[in-house]
Amino acid sequence: MQSLQQKAAEWSGVATEDAFAIDETNLFQKLGLQTFINLSTNFYTRVYDDEEEWFRSIFANSNKQDAIQNQYEFFVQRMGGPPLFSQRRGHPALIGRHRPFPVTHRAAERWLHHMQQALDATTDIDDDSKIKMMNFFRHTAYFLVAGDELKNQNQQVPCKHAAGR
Amino acid sequence: MQSLQQKAAEWSGVATEDAFAIDETNLFQKLGLQTFINLSTNFYTRVYDDEEEWFRSIFANSNKQDAIQNQYEFFVQRMGGPPLFSQRRGHPALIGRHRPFPVTHRAAERWLHHMQQALDATTDIDDDSKIKMMNFFRHTAYFLVAGDELKNQNQQVPCKHAAGR
Repeated sequence: MQSLQQKAAEWSGVATEDAFAIDETNLFQKLGLQTFINLSTNFYTRVYDDEEEWFRSIFANSNKQDAIQNQYEFFVQRMGGPPLFSQRRGHPALIGRHRPFPVTHRAAERWLHHMQQALDATTDIDDDSKIKMMNFFRHTAYFLVAGDELKNQNQQVPCKHAAGR
Repeated sequence: MQSLQQKAAEWSGVATEDAFAIDETNLFQKLGLQTFINLSTNFYTRVYDDEEEWFRSIFANSNKQDAIQNQYEFFVQRMGGPPLFSQRRGHPALIGRHRPFPVTHRAAERWLHHMQQALDATTDIDDDSKIKMMNFFRHTAYFLVAGDELKNQNQQVPCKHAAGR
């Protein structure tokens, strides 16, 4: 069976080592907290205004400000800054926390579309950091698609033989 | 609904801020790689030799050397060292990766019993680091118990009304 990271690499086209090239430099020290806040604010403004209702509706039960804070605190923690996310919410546990959401290939691509736009609109991120971050995001998005598919593995087939009883 | 970290704190008796006091000092720099390898080797030697078959059997399909490497690479990464785990396997995704296993309260306590013994047997870990690590482990164990319970949330009730059809 393929592992989560093998699926993520194959589906995203980003090798695990390229995804985690974010660890080669300290992006938090390079970019600073405000840049991460700006990025997540820009990203979720696009998401909550998305003209594609099927995607926007995934976030309908989440508060926009909470979504922004959860995201930038995770990014800061993962990209060399203080562990803001864990201090407040515990382990990132990305697959577990995405469990309520339908993380399909299509949703991953829409998420990445908005993130690319948000990165491009955040002028204080240099090109090298943008490439590193986008590789990380692309791999992670498909890592979560792989994680989402685990949900189907131990669901019971409903009442398969009930009619014959 | 209680969040994962609220359940983890309540069930473990360790507040989230105390669990993540591991971030106050760089435990990797303090203890060094070999100490983490020794700790995980000691831990899994106890686990794979556990006289309690129900617990030992949880690990029966995993290779002991792989289990040791997965664990110390995660600990090193989470406690201030290089991201060894992510470079090889991607995100820790603790809840997602524990999905195949029955992470019950009883299993958490047995895991913690062996980890306490392993910590006590690893003489090059100072008492302050031991307390910090054990708080982190205790909170994390119950975080995973909380994560495990998510598995039951969207399982279908099998054939509830089949008899009446």
